Amino acid sequence: MQRIPFSEVQSTLAAILMRLGFAEARAQHCARLFAETTRDGVYSHGVARFPRFVAMIRNGNVHVDSAPTLAARFGAVERWQGNRGPGNLNAWFCMDRAIALAREHGIGFVTLANTNHWMRGGTYGWQAADAGMIGICWTNTLPNVPAWGGVEPCLGNNPLVIAVPRAAGHVVLDMAMSQFSYGALESYSRRGQMLPVDGGFNTAGELTRDPAAILASNRALPIGYWKGAGLSTVLDMIAAMTSLGIATYQLGSDPLQEAGTSQVFFVIHPASLGPVDQSAHIVDEIVASLHRSPAAQPDAPIRYPGERTLQIRTENLALGIPVDSALWEQVLAL
Amino acid sequence: MQRIPFSEVQSTLAAILMRLGFAEARAQHCARLFAETTRDGVYSHGVARFPRFVAMIRNGNVHVDSAPTLAARFGAVERWQGNRGPGNLNAWFCMDRAIALAREHGIGFVTLANTNHWMRGGTYGWQAADAGMIGICWTNTLPNVPAWGGVEPCLGNNPLVIAVPRAAGHVVLDMAMSQFSYGALESYSRRGQMLPVDGGFNTAGELTRDPAAILASNRALPIGYWKGAGLSTVLDMIAAMTSLGIATYQLGSDPLQEAGTSQVFFVIHPASLGPVDQSAHIVDEIVASLHRSPAAQPDAPIRYPGERTLQIRTENLALGIPVDSALWEQVLAL
Repeated sequence: MQRIPFSEVQSTLAAILMRLGFAEARAQHCARLFAETTRDGVYSHGVARFPRFVAMIRNGNVHVDSAPTLAARFGAVERWQGNRGPGNLNAWFCMDRAIALAREHGIGFVTLANTNHWMRGGTYGWQAADAGMIGICWTNTLPNVPAWGGVEPCLGNNPLVIAVPRAAGHVVLDMAMSQFSYGALESYSRRGQMLPVDGGFNTAGELTRDPAAILASNRALPIGYWKGAGLSTVLDMIAAMTSLGIATYQLGSDPLQEAGTSQVFFVIHPASLGPVDQSAHIVDEIVASLHRSPAAQPDAPIRYPGERTLQIRTENLALGIPVDSALWEQVLAL
Repeated sequence: MQRIPFSEVQSTLAAILMRLGFAEARAQHCARLFAETTRDGVYSHGVARFPRFVAMIRNGNVHVDSAPTLAARFGAVERWQGNRGPGNLNAWFCMDRAIALAREHGIGFVTLANTNHWMRGGTYGWQAADAGMIGICWTNTLPNVPAWGGVEPCLGNNPLVIAVPRAAGHVVLDMAMSQFSYGALESYSRRGQMLPVDGGFNTAGELTRDPAAILASNRALPIGYWKGAGLSTVLDMIAAMTSLGIATYQLGSDPLQEAGTSQVFFVIHPASLGPVDQSAHIVDEIVASLHRSPAAQPDAPIRYPGERTLQIRTENLALGIPVDSALWEQVLAL
């Protein structure tokens, strides 16, 4: 692992994107979102995902110069076509539209078809919260979790992001519908570790903490068993039906071909409903109530979703962005 | 258990409500929602909850003649005060407002403070879907689940409802954030049965399927462990901050004093985004993909959320609403 200045990470990625045909401003923005993801400690979806992103430009799934085009609008809702553009730029654009709609109408809803992997979903939660807005967004994904009672992956892990603005640090939930990602299962398996809780079924159909057994069965657990399976289903339905886009079952099983996903972006403007000092106080008091609640382990106090982000961000900006050295060699060779 | 005609259940409950001071139309509506809940097979929140509802009228928490009053409106959003009115009538009213806003703006958002328990959350999902709308709503509750890493209940199970309209039967997810309700834990414990999956911690802090051990520790599990705890937190924040209402930590621990909750109601009008035959087809194809997916047990095919409701409804309307005989005696004595 090495630590690289944030600006160097961004400029290195941007230079690669420009060589791949991105216009400069778009290259800088796309590179910045990758660098910020690693800066914020979401190492799985930042620089580590960049080689796959480049591979999907090269295999024709990500169209470097495509931007969203408006398909329909009515009141506070808009439907956009993603035209297979870069997933993070498309998602950023749509969250920005939803924020603008919310300023005008109190709430905004934007739906996006035929886009690409948005990388770190929390990015768009922070984007909304930085604008003083409540942001809710989700994406569908390729099938990677069996339905409840099923044996083959047919549901997406459909990450759901819910962000609440807060002066002392936004509350940002960014969670997939699977209990553990396949990436996490592989990491545990490589280290020879058991999972802390059941993570899926073995080939005999029994719940297990053994990551290798789950990788062998391909039956990872949705959160809350039948409940997360149901939640994944309705998130997929809403994303596909409102965008008139593709659903999880149409997305195949190859991550390098996971193109054309559907996404939705809700934004609520708290100031449209009442004095923001009052709503901000309510959120702060909820945080305080969590911090007061006794912890099972005194050295592990209760945290709200996203609580560690600002601390990690500050540290990574001061010391440099941590990047695996082999990964960085790989990036430099792109 | 006895089976009672739907109309008799409704009229019996309505007569009791009128004796308690409800105007006739409100009594009939409130009674109908209770009867419909039992009719649809959600036995925990229908007639079975009626005695507690009456107790909360008698102890002063539910104000029989209070209706919501408008506190703020802007564009497509409205904030209402529930004035401690009957929770199901208040929630029905607000979902109705959100539907009206969605017809006008494509989306509607209504937030409700100082209301009461809405009984079966799925009621308002069906209400939206019956109007051809996507409905999303949730409520906060008293603290009944510990935060992740915590030892005392400090999060609500905050039921979340997501409904998608569908001609052949709406898709309605109605799920609390706890893996099992305390009511379910008590039922398992009485029958001397283990839970099918881990449902909480024992007093030693170990995950367990033993319902009695969880009842002893008061540490039920949120769905997906840390994930459901995070989801519960942000749902509470959004409900309380947008309604300028009460949060879970302010609600105490006595179900008979659980008054003043906060709720939100989102509605999306699919027709505002594109041709409804196209969006309906997308949902039907997702359902078909689930039904095609192989099941672990051939006699237990994969189902979408709410799939059994219409069948149960038809059966209960034909044969009569099933009500526990002792419960019915208790109701008749109210």
